Amino acid sequence: MPAEVSFTALTPLSFLERSAQVYPEKIAIIHGECRLSYREFAAHAQQLASALHASGIAPGDRVAYLCPNIPEMLIAHFAVPLAGAVLVAINNRLASEEIRYICDHSGAKLLFVDTELHPVLEPLAGRLASVREIVSVDGAGVASRVAGPSYADFLHRGAGEKYLPWKVDDEYRTICLNYTSGTTGRPKGVMYTHRGAYLNALGEIIHCTFTPETVYLWTLPMFHCNGWCMPWAVTGIGASHICLRQVRAQTIWDALTTQAVTHLAGAPTVLSTMANAPQAQRLGRELVVTTAGAPPSPTIIAQMEKLGARVVHVYGLTEVYGPYTVCQWQPRWADEEVADRARKLARQGVAMLIADPIRVVDERMCDVPRDGRTIGEVVMHGNNVMAGYFNDPEATNKAFHGGYFHSGDLAVWHPDGYIELRDRAKDIIISGGENISTIEVEQAIVGHPAVLEAAVIGVPDDRWGERPKAFVVLKHDQQVAAQELIDHCKRVIARFKAPDFIEFVEELPKTSTGKLQKFALRERERSAGRHHIKD
Amino acid sequence: MPAEVSFTALTPLSFLERSAQVYPEKIAIIHGECRLSYREFAAHAQQLASALHASGIAPGDRVAYLCPNIPEMLIAHFAVPLAGAVLVAINNRLASEEIRYICDHSGAKLLFVDTELHPVLEPLAGRLASVREIVSVDGAGVASRVAGPSYADFLHRGAGEKYLPWKVDDEYRTICLNYTSGTTGRPKGVMYTHRGAYLNALGEIIHCTFTPETVYLWTLPMFHCNGWCMPWAVTGIGASHICLRQVRAQTIWDALTTQAVTHLAGAPTVLSTMANAPQAQRLGRELVVTTAGAPPSPTIIAQMEKLGARVVHVYGLTEVYGPYTVCQWQPRWADEEVADRARKLARQGVAMLIADPIRVVDERMCDVPRDGRTIGEVVMHGNNVMAGYFNDPEATNKAFHGGYFHSGDLAVWHPDGYIELRDRAKDIIISGGENISTIEVEQAIVGHPAVLEAAVIGVPDDRWGERPKAFVVLKHDQQVAAQELIDHCKRVIARFKAPDFIEFVEELPKTSTGKLQKFALRERERSAGRHHIKD
Repeated sequence: MPAEVSFTALTPLSFLERSAQVYPEKIAIIHGECRLSYREFAAHAQQLASALHASGIAPGDRVAYLCPNIPEMLIAHFAVPLAGAVLVAINNRLASEEIRYICDHSGAKLLFVDTELHPVLEPLAGRLASVREIVSVDGAGVASRVAGPSYADFLHRGAGEKYLPWKVDDEYRTICLNYTSGTTGRPKGVMYTHRGAYLNALGEIIHCTFTPETVYLWTLPMFHCNGWCMPWAVTGIGASHICLRQVRAQTIWDALTTQAVTHLAGAPTVLSTMANAPQAQRLGRELVVTTAGAPPSPTIIAQMEKLGARVVHVYGLTEVYGPYTVCQWQPRWADEEVADRARKLARQGVAMLIADPIRVVDERMCDVPRDGRTIGEVVMHGNNVMAGYFNDPEATNKAFHGGYFHSGDLAVWHPDGYIELRDRAKDIIISGGENISTIEVEQAIVGHPAVLEAAVIGVPDDRWGERPKAFVVLKHDQQVAAQELIDHCKRVIARFKAPDFIEFVEELPKTSTGKLQKFALRERERSAGRHHIKD
Repeated sequence: MPAEVSFTALTPLSFLERSAQVYPEKIAIIHGECRLSYREFAAHAQQLASALHASGIAPGDRVAYLCPNIPEMLIAHFAVPLAGAVLVAINNRLASEEIRYICDHSGAKLLFVDTELHPVLEPLAGRLASVREIVSVDGAGVASRVAGPSYADFLHRGAGEKYLPWKVDDEYRTICLNYTSGTTGRPKGVMYTHRGAYLNALGEIIHCTFTPETVYLWTLPMFHCNGWCMPWAVTGIGASHICLRQVRAQTIWDALTTQAVTHLAGAPTVLSTMANAPQAQRLGRELVVTTAGAPPSPTIIAQMEKLGARVVHVYGLTEVYGPYTVCQWQPRWADEEVADRARKLARQGVAMLIADPIRVVDERMCDVPRDGRTIGEVVMHGNNVMAGYFNDPEATNKAFHGGYFHSGDLAVWHPDGYIELRDRAKDIIISGGENISTIEVEQAIVGHPAVLEAAVIGVPDDRWGERPKAFVVLKHDQQVAAQELIDHCKRVIARFKAPDFIEFVEELPKTSTGKLQKFALRERERSAGRHHIKD
């Protein structure tokens, strides 16, 4: 840039600085009986950042969090980068070994863990390679079961430290790592930059129509793509966050009826939970519900409209800061039948304002025709795409071959420029909004001594959207019960990833080169009439 | 930036690309009977950019426009940077010599002029140093009086050219120059970058609450700070522009009553014109009126509220892309008396979301106390501040001394962090939303052979906000009538800059070092009871 240019590195840290200045007394965070003003939110982040420095955290160091959607998790989104460090928000449904892998791979020096999640940490005592201290975040009164300072004691280390500037020296610095289950077994650490998080947050403000009067309910896990950058977006516009330790029908409806919630986000499963709860009732105000993870069904859209909610459908991946596209509403759709409108809204849509145009390409990286029929791969580029996988140049290069990020998602391109997903090339199962890598489940099953090989596909599930089903070939002369295999999986991977169904088969369908043909398994399921499998 | 970062240079060009893709058939521009869809808007910009290339315009070249708020002016905001060139939108109220200076100083190679403005160009025939061609934009049927191609003929040169990417290679490239009347005589060319224009436009979308349903009425001149970056913001969100060749009560109210206008912007003078028109009536919808250039008076705010309009008060300068601060609304103000609320709303406020925090500093660049009484200078920094003055490193360095852009505006800082202007250190007069440099007027007066010296101050004016008044010392034994001096000014500078009042005096108040004491003149005016001069 020319020397004379007046320049400030883009960072979402500036958002909390501004809101604390403009709305010091406004309620920033609500959690149960707890209320934090924007002044307190910023002061807490400052003190925690100072405490991180006092604990030896230097710029670029990783700080991991294993917490539900509590205020401490929200504050971490500002305090950790304020200290110049990198936030690693870990999926709190993972198994001990997965947590260990992420801590070790990221080289996290500190780990903050909610006491409710301590049991999953106990097997890791003394086994984390880089973590120097585990800080116990008080979880609903549950006693700590892990050695290390309490959150209050840790925070105290930052008392009296000087004020840190809400700035970053380089907007391309990593602000956080998000570990994806990916498709090739091991989780990969997706790097978000300060610039990308800033721009994605501005995009969320615009597309989710946040205003300073917004009251945002935290039904979306903050560990999932940093809650689609919403911690930064909601704070930036100066709205109020409502935290939720547990995302259940009761807690959601308690918030919806006692607080003036205007916005929430979540997978269609969350919407379904909301709509089918006994407490469900029409709200006396507009509620904007942003959804992703799976296309919202016509049923869900109709149910949401009945509650007085407007559905904003977005699509993305961990690698693109959460949402990349939005199914941008067209006024002419208002005149259509509900079913037609729902079909339009179930499409993944077009790029957000701050993202490069979305593309659907063939194997030679040429755009497929916009005919609504030709299938190609969804590829993405620009400021709303990750900086790469942490310490994994090979996977990064592979993901970016041809200069674009390859989503692995297969889609058609409609004549109006909206894309619609048709399959997941990577066979990821999306269950309750969370990714389950079929390869990972297969590896767990194959880990059992009686198993020869296994193939996992997603089968439709009313509650979770999809659940894993495994086709298993046993070793010669070996016997094992289906339930024993399921229990085995629950011991080695997160419980929610274990298959619900096991079918023992003589052999698996394969190509001549030995590559598994999962489409044949799906076809078999469909023709057997057991499930309505998507193509 | 690290090599692996996926990166796209920020540019508002991407906004038209997106809206043309998402809303191809939507009405983008309305002007009288003319309607342009977003598809046509983008195609027109593409063709014009190709025509610019075919006419020898290379990246970095300057292209000047002298036009009212017509579709061609809006299209230029995309077509010129699409060709890699720099837009110079000239104030269409300037005198011939001022236009010549700007064309020559910017080195503009092409000049597009509305035929209604041809008379002011006639004296410049053969006298423009760098302009190769003058393109005649058809102005309401007025015949061309200047040699050069018609707009239609020029556009034809771009027919059949290939599609240009809506991209820029470096976001710090200059997208346009805006000449300010400044305070040191000669106009200075303020350089805006693609990055700054992009971010300011996102800020306008958020703070003016633009949505895709917005219908924006062009009451703000597009030549003024590029219409506060609104050409980019309104296009980015995919809203509709309504162009206005002439900003008069009749044309404004015609648009307000026949089109579903939701937003407009302008100086308080424009609001006053609206409110005091015989056609004024309460609108059946919310109208958001963004105002700047002078604090909106309690009277105007009350009048606007009566019409059903909500006032958003912003403040900035040419050097900061138009608006830099916004008087951010606080919910608690709703309960206050109109007069109290209006006093709050008349303050310049706090930095926009995309700007660095605003500061009010003393001579040592230290923040003044936030006591609502101590006066300091308003300084600004960051992405919402110009890249510098074109070809004027000396003025640039002076404006940025201490690392901040010095606005020259004096303000107090209130305990709630909102700033409030108290005086213009540079003595700029704001008349009808347009800047008048008192120094420039003084120089014009002193150019008359009978005048020894002159000092100009702004005096309140019901219609224009402020008008210039000159205190003149004649040369010994010389005589001249006030009207002759006024007529003289109208010949050498823009007519609207000529003083309305002349007072002949024996001498001007000065400091011991000979510096003019304008505050003494203001004091004299006030004590004489002739005007209510601000302190």
